[in-house]
Amino acid sequence: MNFCSGCGNKVHQAVPPGDNRVRWCCAHCGAIHYQNPNVVVGTVSTWAEEILLCRRAIEPRYGLWTLPAGFLENDETTAQGAERETREEAGATIELLRPYAMIDVPHVNQVHLFYRARMLHPELDPGEESLEARLFQVADIPWDHIAFRTVEKTLRWFIDDLAAAQPDHLAPIHYDAITLGLRPRGTP
Amino acid sequence: MNFCSGCGNKVHQAVPPGDNRVRWCCAHCGAIHYQNPNVVVGTVSTWAEEILLCRRAIEPRYGLWTLPAGFLENDETTAQGAERETREEAGATIELLRPYAMIDVPHVNQVHLFYRARMLHPELDPGEESLEARLFQVADIPWDHIAFRTVEKTLRWFIDDLAAAQPDHLAPIHYDAITLGLRPRGTP
Repeated sequence: MNFCSGCGNKVHQAVPPGDNRVRWCCAHCGAIHYQNPNVVVGTVSTWAEEILLCRRAIEPRYGLWTLPAGFLENDETTAQGAERETREEAGATIELLRPYAMIDVPHVNQVHLFYRARMLHPELDPGEESLEARLFQVADIPWDHIAFRTVEKTLRWFIDDLAAAQPDHLAPIHYDAITLGLRPRGTP
Repeated sequence: MNFCSGCGNKVHQAVPPGDNRVRWCCAHCGAIHYQNPNVVVGTVSTWAEEILLCRRAIEPRYGLWTLPAGFLENDETTAQGAERETREEAGATIELLRPYAMIDVPHVNQVHLFYRARMLHPELDPGEESLEARLFQVADIPWDHIAFRTVEKTLRWFIDDLAAAQPDHLAPIHYDAITLGLRPRGTP
């Protein structure tokens, strides 16, 4: 950040009065430009016991498999965002069941939230951000080609739950934090 | 938004290629300035069966009671943010138990997330953003002076759970969305 988005003058870094963190501040108009984490919303969508994955047509992680997910937008709920991403990336028609997994990814300033969802029919129609969308049997999940650690973690929770036949309406949300590991900065 | 925060030139609204929403775009440097919802994190903290509330010393809702909560910051997890807000606003020392309630507030572009927490001792030391911090018996909760609907909703869930003696480790997360009602824009 170099310039104030309100008045166009140069910004500087300072701790505003009453605050305890450095923010981008504009001395000209007095604006404080806060920067906060983003929410990524997606789904673990299934048809029978097959799990919906999309192969990414965009960077980062082009060509790798992911659960359908993307940034929550203004003016929508997390449920609406999760449904929208699943429709846009996979062309799937789904019914959301409940919030399923929440994973903090503080090194990229993101919170990933996956809803459990049921597909209403098996037809798929992948959008521009997906090379393909496919239903996978658990045994066929391409573990060596999963795009993000949050996706891998959520898939493993889900497969454990399938094995335990955990009733969806009673189960607590899974949650964890992923901290900076071997993968390059910018990829959760 | 009037100016590009990167190069300082005027921005305009347009749908970028491959996108389906209007964004603030800079024709000079090509930057797209996305705007996305914020996460508010807080706690339902208790000592024995008394519930911790803070009386707001800041706008909006100056003088009204709230669960300790505030904006999630960059470089922290939702759990760290919830603990920090409870410490900053109430001076409480807590142990987090689990994510308890998630409420979408799309008309102010926020997601509110409350953790269940246990106070490790009953001492409180309210910070600058609180006029006071206090432990309330359920019967004494000041329902007519609660700052936000998300706080009221979360408190009602918690009181129902207390009555049902729901074991914390087994309970699913509560979730809901609050849509635009009678309160003025800008107050969840």
